[in-house]
Amino acid sequence: MESRRWLVQKMGEAGLTAEIDGVGTVIGRSALPGPALLIGSHSDTQPTGGWLDGALGVIYGLEVARALGEKSRTRRLPVDVVSWIDEEGTFFSCLGSHSFCESLAPDVFDTSRDAGGRTLGEALRSAGLWQRPRARLQGERYRGYLEAHIEQGPYLEEAGKRIGVVTGIVGIRNLTISASGQQNHAGTTPMHRRKDAGRALIELAYRVHQAFPEHAGPRTVWTIGWVEFEPGAPSIVPGRASMNLQFRDADEAKLDELQSLALEMVEAANRATPVEVSVERPHDPSRPASMDEGFQRHIADAAERHAAGSWMHMPSAAGHDAQVLANRMPSAMLFVPSIGGISHAFEEDSHEDDIVLGCQVLATAAASILAE
Amino acid sequence: MESRRWLVQKMGEAGLTAEIDGVGTVIGRSALPGPALLIGSHSDTQPTGGWLDGALGVIYGLEVARALGEKSRTRRLPVDVVSWIDEEGTFFSCLGSHSFCESLAPDVFDTSRDAGGRTLGEALRSAGLWQRPRARLQGERYRGYLEAHIEQGPYLEEAGKRIGVVTGIVGIRNLTISASGQQNHAGTTPMHRRKDAGRALIELAYRVHQAFPEHAGPRTVWTIGWVEFEPGAPSIVPGRASMNLQFRDADEAKLDELQSLALEMVEAANRATPVEVSVERPHDPSRPASMDEGFQRHIADAAERHAAGSWMHMPSAAGHDAQVLANRMPSAMLFVPSIGGISHAFEEDSHEDDIVLGCQVLATAAASILAE
Repeated sequence: MESRRWLVQKMGEAGLTAEIDGVGTVIGRSALPGPALLIGSHSDTQPTGGWLDGALGVIYGLEVARALGEKSRTRRLPVDVVSWIDEEGTFFSCLGSHSFCESLAPDVFDTSRDAGGRTLGEALRSAGLWQRPRARLQGERYRGYLEAHIEQGPYLEEAGKRIGVVTGIVGIRNLTISASGQQNHAGTTPMHRRKDAGRALIELAYRVHQAFPEHAGPRTVWTIGWVEFEPGAPSIVPGRASMNLQFRDADEAKLDELQSLALEMVEAANRATPVEVSVERPHDPSRPASMDEGFQRHIADAAERHAAGSWMHMPSAAGHDAQVLANRMPSAMLFVPSIGGISHAFEEDSHEDDIVLGCQVLATAAASILAE
Repeated sequence: MESRRWLVQKMGEAGLTAEIDGVGTVIGRSALPGPALLIGSHSDTQPTGGWLDGALGVIYGLEVARALGEKSRTRRLPVDVVSWIDEEGTFFSCLGSHSFCESLAPDVFDTSRDAGGRTLGEALRSAGLWQRPRARLQGERYRGYLEAHIEQGPYLEEAGKRIGVVTGIVGIRNLTISASGQQNHAGTTPMHRRKDAGRALIELAYRVHQAFPEHAGPRTVWTIGWVEFEPGAPSIVPGRASMNLQFRDADEAKLDELQSLALEMVEAANRATPVEVSVERPHDPSRPASMDEGFQRHIADAAERHAAGSWMHMPSAAGHDAQVLANRMPSAMLFVPSIGGISHAFEEDSHEDDIVLGCQVLATAAASILAE
């Protein structure tokens, strides 16, 4: 909340009317006649995540609003700046942008929980946000949405490029797979009598990693990032075990194929062992999204002007708020290279000259879109 | 601490001089001339463990001391009663009995930690025990040690027997196996560039479960009861992953063979992947132990007297404090059947008539050993 109040102050100093809304999104609105460009990203992060994932794009938005306001040629161009809440999904992925676009399920405040079991509604109450109005997309206010972000992968660095013009964003599926057996003593329970939920889950996880390469597309990625055995003690045969299987692709048909494969494997595990294996499908799969082609041309022209020959088109393998906004208005993204392709880790970083260049390209693209 | 104070009071009412010692063991000593029999078990338990594992044998000890004291024929027979601390290894397996037998490493108070990272020394300080003297085995005080316990397995029930006379106790090895890779973003990191610690650990765990049956003896058991991925989030490729592999057998050579197999598999995993896989070997493997044959005869005779034909000899597949005591004095154990063989779970239970019978057999055996 302190960082959000800081951001409200900075937006105010940039001439915007800023507020923290009812879910924690910070939005600063221009008083200039529209339609305006909405520019921003998110300022929440992952556990042990880095310093640029999200925050970079928010500060870019603030700086573009300030920079355009300083020059007589651009000072009449209206820019709103936004810092979306909970893009990473502590409670619900892209909460802030879904709330803004009115694509939240009505029960999300009661059903979405953090890892500690607290509901989103409880968290908003304890942060003092529950009574505040939620910012909502207003009719014809916007020309579109721009978001800058670190790439979080190795492609720009490997290609020797400094700016990525994003063509589209992958869809993401998350399956929570659980095994339920019989908790028992790890010494006195003979092997043939065990219903070991942990062992059943390990076998399934192994088979997933074996089977997915045969079905994956060239840019498909899949991850088992979280596993838990219950009660999780050396001397106890696990009675229950759970894991998350996530996969991403820009092609929705490929996602459907992989999901069918995973569900078949769960069924096969269920039949093959005395342990019950089940899967929860998310009610909020994140769909692939295309970026606006006109906006892509503006970003590419700006990149060519500031760093001739040093930019490329590329898809985004990470989910972003731009995916949600793209359902409601023309949207586009710009990527800055990540050193070593590392992200969602403390080591995440980008070269300072790339960080400066990214903001120059974004400002030029924003001005040319608004001047069009 | 409250339950320990309760037990001190009950021991006092039974005519014993009782104290809580410097590690939390409760011991009540008889004032009668010796040598005495030491009778007891442990009163700590597993996370989500049941009501009998440990506590049964402590209350049996108390009841045997009371019962022998009530009859003129047995009231001169000296029985000490003990409730060992931390048999289950929250900090260090069989802490209380090791402390009593002076087989603790001197650095155990600084190096042994609970799952939350607190050292044993810190825990004892905060419980107010740090300044108290530790109970130690005194020269010739004891004729030997008796411990009753639930079987925690299915063998008695399957054989239709009500008392198990324990012949020996399995040894236990615990290996903590860790994989160290590169934490990264689960969307933007291409599959071929990942150093996924979780995947490396899953593959190793799968191979262990495949390989162990070929090398195991008829009563060998092995368990992967605890697994952890770090940071453990759906959208992050795990940078680090750990698991515990435990195996048990009454034959030390078999334990050595299985340990060599596990270490070879860790080495192979290390060579096969870009992830670094390593293993920590415990400095305190629990050795197989034989129960005293003379004491076994006393227990068998008592069982035959109270439940003719309804008892059997059997090894213990669980570790017990009797294993530690057996290094210092004649020791023996008696088992009571577990319903469904279930233990280390809330459902753990035994039939009430079996619970009563077990204590009668123990009292008769104790009296006949002391009268010898």
